[in-house]
Amino acid sequence: MRIVGVLGGMGPEATIYFMQRVVNAVPARDDADHVPLIVDNNTQVPSRIKAIIEGTGDDPAPVLVQMAQGLVGAGAQALVMPCNTAHYYAEHVERATDAPFLNMVTLSCAEAAQTAPGGKVGLLGSPALRQVGVFEAALAAKGLAPVYGQDDRRVLATIRAIKAQGPSEFAAHTLSDVAAQMVEDGADVICICCTEFSLLAREITAKVNMFDALDVLVNATVQFSTTDRA
Amino acid sequence: MRIVGVLGGMGPEATIYFMQRVVNAVPARDDADHVPLIVDNNTQVPSRIKAIIEGTGDDPAPVLVQMAQGLVGAGAQALVMPCNTAHYYAEHVERATDAPFLNMVTLSCAEAAQTAPGGKVGLLGSPALRQVGVFEAALAAKGLAPVYGQDDRRVLATIRAIKAQGPSEFAAHTLSDVAAQMVEDGADVICICCTEFSLLAREITAKVNMFDALDVLVNATVQFSTTDRA
Repeated sequence: MRIVGVLGGMGPEATIYFMQRVVNAVPARDDADHVPLIVDNNTQVPSRIKAIIEGTGDDPAPVLVQMAQGLVGAGAQALVMPCNTAHYYAEHVERATDAPFLNMVTLSCAEAAQTAPGGKVGLLGSPALRQVGVFEAALAAKGLAPVYGQDDRRVLATIRAIKAQGPSEFAAHTLSDVAAQMVEDGADVICICCTEFSLLAREITAKVNMFDALDVLVNATVQFSTTDRA
Repeated sequence: MRIVGVLGGMGPEATIYFMQRVVNAVPARDDADHVPLIVDNNTQVPSRIKAIIEGTGDDPAPVLVQMAQGLVGAGAQALVMPCNTAHYYAEHVERATDAPFLNMVTLSCAEAAQTAPGGKVGLLGSPALRQVGVFEAALAAKGLAPVYGQDDRRVLATIRAIKAQGPSEFAAHTLSDVAAQMVEDGADVICICCTEFSLLAREITAKVNMFDALDVLVNATVQFSTTDRA
């Protein structure tokens, strides 16, 4: 089993949820069957929302670079970052070490291309994803186009509520509304691409296929760990 | 907020549960309010049960020492180990680095002494705890005596079932039975001291006061992190 390093804490609850899903994804008879992870559950990464949307606050990039290097120094053989918005800084993380970075955005676009070839992907995530085009290049590379939500303030308020109070029925209802609007706007598939929303993945409904970017990352993590070195 | 390093993976589910409890223990408005943790969720630590009870398999101690050093190297300012049985190796971990080790066994004995001064403590945990006396010295130092379960095979089977299949109603029922026998044998307080059993803490019942060693460790972790340097 190869060791996967996790740039976590964005937020801590989503990181824990990612870890739990990795445990659940492995049929195990004892501890040793599970994927070994080293997790920097760093709750002190400067706010991605503040840096990207509000243009204030510290730059998260140097902190993420340091975390990547720390994880590889501690033995990680690949890196993952269970926070879609933070993938704005993916290139910094990729360049920080020699270990492969399992890019949740790239992997999710490949998944969407299989589900809806040449289609439109509803990105159920932070408004920051649109503002800085986190998914744009990866979608285009797969011949896909994005559909974004129409009410940024409502989505942002939902993220903040989940970070502060945990997942709720109200949040799931709001996100199902947002997804319905995306389908009206032409989305052929919905990608849940905010790890806060992943906490509610089973409660959010949509009239088209829907998948969770976090699930895609979980599968890639298990596959990397359980595959022998090339 | 000071960073706490977690010697984890024993088992991975218990480590995740510890992390979730640390999140739940902090009133938070955003990510940054939460305790930063660096977690070595090392599923490949040699089996404590095999090494201690069966006397076979590799020695976990050198692996735990390496984990402790790796965590401190990555920035941890204190260390915790959410596995009671592994505290058999506590001295190795304590000597491995200069960072303080928040010892779950010592802390739990202090908690028991407050609840039942001079009393008997039912240790609802792995039979390995008795076989190598993990709690003996710490209990004696507080004027307390241990009460152990009578059916080692049943308790061991329950640990293995939880590690393999997760917590179940059947396991909770079994452990309530074991706790009841401990009370018959004179226990004044029950200490849940196996992190697999912590997953069921709310489902296990007893006729005397009961507390979970993991909760004690969660509180110590939050307190260390949120207290300024001395």
